[in-house]
Amino acid sequence: MIDHHVHGVVRSVLPRPAFELLINEGGWVAPPGTSHFDSSLGAAIRRWCAPVLGLDPLCPPDTYLGRRAELGDEANRLLLRAAAGAGLVGAYVDTGHRSGEVCTPEELGALAGVPAWEVVRVESVFEEAAAAAAAEGRVAELPDRWAALLRRRALTAVGLKSVVAYRHGFDLDPTPPAPGEVVVAVERWLQDAVAGAPGDRPPRLRVADPVLLRHILWEAAAVGREQRLPLQLHAGFGDADLDLHRVDPVVFTPWLRAWRSLDLPVVFLHCWPYHRQAAYLAAIWPSVYFDLGASLNYVGARAPAVLAEALEVAPWSKLLYSSDAFGLAELVHLGAVAFVRGLDAVLSRWVESGELTAVDADRVRSLAGAGNARRLYAGAPGLRASGAGPAGTPGPAAPVP
Amino acid sequence: MIDHHVHGVVRSVLPRPAFELLINEGGWVAPPGTSHFDSSLGAAIRRWCAPVLGLDPLCPPDTYLGRRAELGDEANRLLLRAAAGAGLVGAYVDTGHRSGEVCTPEELGALAGVPAWEVVRVESVFEEAAAAAAAEGRVAELPDRWAALLRRRALTAVGLKSVVAYRHGFDLDPTPPAPGEVVVAVERWLQDAVAGAPGDRPPRLRVADPVLLRHILWEAAAVGREQRLPLQLHAGFGDADLDLHRVDPVVFTPWLRAWRSLDLPVVFLHCWPYHRQAAYLAAIWPSVYFDLGASLNYVGARAPAVLAEALEVAPWSKLLYSSDAFGLAELVHLGAVAFVRGLDAVLSRWVESGELTAVDADRVRSLAGAGNARRLYAGAPGLRASGAGPAGTPGPAAPVP
Amino acid sequence: MIDHHVHGVVRSVLPRPAFELLINEGGWVAPPGTSHFDSSLGAAIRRWCAPVLGLDPLCPPDTYLGRRAELGDEANRLLLRAAAGAGLVGAYVDTGHRSGEVCTPEELGALAGVPAWEVVRVESVFEEAAAAAAAEGRVAELPDRWAALLRRRALTAVGLKSVVAYRHGFDLDPTPPAPGEVVVAVERWLQDAVAGAPGDRPPRLRVADPVLLRHILWEAAAVGREQRLPLQLHAGFGDADLDLHRVDPVVFTPWLRAWRSLDLPVVFLHCWPYHRQAAYLAAIWPSVYFDLGASLNYVGARAPAVLAEALEVAPWSKLLYSSDAFGLAELVHLGAVAFVRGLDAVLSRWVESGELTAVDADRVRSLAGAGNARRLYAGAPGLRASGAGPAGTPGPAAPVP
Repeated sequence: MIDHHVHGVVRSVLPRPAFELLINEGGWVAPPGTSHFDSSLGAAIRRWCAPVLGLDPLCPPDTYLGRRAELGDEANRLLLRAAAGAGLVGAYVDTGHRSGEVCTPEELGALAGVPAWEVVRVESVFEEAAAAAAAEGRVAELPDRWAALLRRRALTAVGLKSVVAYRHGFDLDPTPPAPGEVVVAVERWLQDAVAGAPGDRPPRLRVADPVLLRHILWEAAAVGREQRLPLQLHAGFGDADLDLHRVDPVVFTPWLRAWRSLDLPVVFLHCWPYHRQAAYLAAIWPSVYFDLGASLNYVGARAPAVLAEALEVAPWSKLLYSSDAFGLAELVHLGAVAFVRGLDAVLSRWVESGELTAVDADRVRSLAGAGNARRLYAGAPGLRASGAGPAGTPGPAAPVP
Repeated sequence: MIDHHVHGVVRSVLPRPAFELLINEGGWVAPPGTSHFDSSLGAAIRRWCAPVLGLDPLCPPDTYLGRRAELGDEANRLLLRAAAGAGLVGAYVDTGHRSGEVCTPEELGALAGVPAWEVVRVESVFEEAAAAAAAEGRVAELPDRWAALLRRRALTAVGLKSVVAYRHGFDLDPTPPAPGEVVVAVERWLQDAVAGAPGDRPPRLRVADPVLLRHILWEAAAVGREQRLPLQLHAGFGDADLDLHRVDPVVFTPWLRAWRSLDLPVVFLHCWPYHRQAAYLAAIWPSVYFDLGASLNYVGARAPAVLAEALEVAPWSKLLYSSDAFGLAELVHLGAVAFVRGLDAVLSRWVESGELTAVDADRVRSLAGAGNARRLYAGAPGLRASGAGPAGTPGPAAPVP
Repeated sequence: MIDHHVHGVVRSVLPRPAFELLINEGGWVAPPGTSHFDSSLGAAIRRWCAPVLGLDPLCPPDTYLGRRAELGDEANRLLLRAAAGAGLVGAYVDTGHRSGEVCTPEELGALAGVPAWEVVRVESVFEEAAAAAAAEGRVAELPDRWAALLRRRALTAVGLKSVVAYRHGFDLDPTPPAPGEVVVAVERWLQDAVAGAPGDRPPRLRVADPVLLRHILWEAAAVGREQRLPLQLHAGFGDADLDLHRVDPVVFTPWLRAWRSLDLPVVFLHCWPYHRQAAYLAAIWPSVYFDLGASLNYVGARAPAVLAEALEVAPWSKLLYSSDAFGLAELVHLGAVAFVRGLDAVLSRWVESGELTAVDADRVRSLAGAGNARRLYAGAPGLRASGAGPAGTPGPAAPVP
């Protein structure tokens, strides 16, 4: 499988509170008297990761974390190699989220023993360009500078990623803003950020202005189209920054309509509990792909049930695999296990009852696991530049620069 | 079963690209390197229709299409007779969608060997009246003329059907527009259509103006009430013209409230992925009925799972059967198979575990398959005019005029 | 189990039409030729309640109702004792809905043989204060008087409950209205109510004004915080007063954000068909809890399937149990049976397949059934005032005053 959307892992030892924060999307500690281990994901880690570290399945959390601490970085290597053992052959790594806390794509690939490429988060690039432009007092140049920076970053990337879901939601006017509007919005945004920053520290730049988000999406679409980079979009299941119903993929439909002639592939990530809706868009719109991402990890034993719902109307050529693991090597491994086992549970039942041939089932497995990603990302400059075929085919391990 | 919402079938031989377009709602060819056969529906056709044409279940698509082409129109007859063999006893045929490409209700009934009646699509009648009024330069008469035409068409119909879902969505002001507003909207609509038409060709009239759609719905409600014609409404699963979340049946609730005193039966069609929502409305509102329509075909092996969700809160007296087949006789047959087998899978399990008696299960089957449709459509003028009892009861085959 | 949201039962004999109205949320009789018994809930009553009254499972409705009439109030006692036999150990009773038609919490507790406490419905208290203020011609005092009344009622309560879902939906501006706005809205509301009242009868006071609803929610939040009373919110499945998509718990997210610093527990009730969404909020927001309430009764044999969906991402510490029974003792019993059996079906399967240990499964059962309610409501003044530990622990039966 190609994990077409994943993040780096933390390489230092994690005390229980820090570990618990990484197995819950909320970002808050569990209320007094409770633990984030008391969940489907907590149970799945005890079930599937404990044996990788030489422990009994379903051992208590403290036993697990004790063993993990003893092993240090070796735990990461064991879990990532276990993911490779479960079928992982390549990783596309989003580098735009808290990148200072986790390892690089190169390091992740080396730990897992698989090639890794970079997915560029467009809002992060915009914020990076804005910080530089603001520091130099050249705010008016931001639109040009960010476009140039994005194009430069694209040259070694395998995909683009947007988190407009976290910054506003998909209920955004799908027309491109006029250049004049963008300049006004940039100035207002930077002024507000400076005004809100304490004393002599640099302002925190988090773009959430609807005009700027529209501008970023249209520019990302242009670059994606030029460079043959699919655009990944966070959808559904996420943290407290988002309003779930506003990140249902179908709310993005007016954008699909506006982009119809661009021929730009759009990949909705996670999607749960709107995975049927994502599958529907993938069935109707030639440009749409989707995965179940982090949600397969979070639903634990229910992964087959969620996959079965996703497979109702999903074209076999449109479902992809990702773990969306962030911080924990456990999540890379679990994602692979949940996907392989879940898909197998669904497809075996259908073969058994005569709904599919065994050959059909193998095709679905192979397409969803890697074939669709290979086809979709085949033209990405990161893959072309590295001289490699798509991940998983022979070629240099081709880490990102 | 009474297939209370179906379309005609294409009678000519279909090359693979044309066939593929009819097994995907999107209306676009599958992306390069992919096929619309790679889907639940594609597999279901290979599984359940191949044997009807004398082939092995799950044979390859080209084998299937080769045999289909050899058989010519006989393939239609075989598949429609197979639907009758699976229990089909009557068809209510929507004639308002691309009617030039498919056979008439009369022909469909003759091929299947079951009686067929017409369902009149109200937006199509409005567009037909508009074309005539525009050609004669009597635009101001349109409101009166379309009302008269609709009443005339109603006299031989079994039901009315609206596609407001495709033209706007259910998030429409539920008050009736004032007559003056309607006249202004008609003039603007026709002017825009004429202005948009190339050269000397007649303008394409596709009504999507919210004022006109509200006017059409209120007029349809009045005619439905007068003539005892239920109003079918497309909901959920459809093509790229619609925004899925705006055609969730519950978005129509303000209209149900506005129409409460009219005592007009409203039937939501398809509904997936909002079939639980449709079942909820059917449980709460005496006027609401629903079916799973085309979605049962599209979800393939998951039909029992989707039916089980629909049956959670659906009153047994409110669920209907339809295939929504368009163009392909396969879809008429598959719809019947999916419904019979799916319902049977769900109900048998409940009888086995003691949740229902076998008699209860038979009642659910019989009500959902035909009994509810018989009761609901019993007063329709088409059935009364034909001298027939409702479809499936003894009486003349009573094709539409 | 602690049934943390339930209502009183009717103690008189119910003829079939009156009984049918209590097994359907719509409030209307079933259409001619149909019966509300023809539903999952109707079947569940025949299946699980008939044996409690000494009848065969799945006997016909009339047999059931005949026996029920013979037994009189003894039927209530038998059914409520059966609920206790199934594990019920305490009841938190909402007294704000048609309280004149059903028994008091004290009577309910006595019939079931379990302690009972009161949940105070905040909109009802507001309407009660408004009626008094209007009768005395002291309308301007309403804001102060209702705040005082709510605080007085809170002293013996175990929780607060809001039905803003029925009065408007969750799509409400989450800021507190200014005091001046509240006074204006009160005056307009009472004037309209008086104007709408026939002749010399007192006006019907049903608060639905968005400004007043926002005011009520913020005041309830303040009282809840001061008095350590969780705030229950009706969500999802309900009657014709609500628009289902506007009572999806995720639509309430801006309020959760606005209340983040208050540390006020919020409990979404029922939630179906948005139970996955409720579980998601419970996973992300430390303040959020949820239950499946009345929906487990209404989905009948599908209770295990619905529970399985709810358990996908729900923290084990956040799912509660309630029946939301109103009027019928059957619903108290069925709720307990559906929850115990449903949870058991899901958890046994997971233990069998090695996803959970038996000890994990027992913890989930015990937390969801009572442990979470005990922890959540532990600080409520009603429990403290009664000198009792939380329901189900030893202590006086502590009926509400």
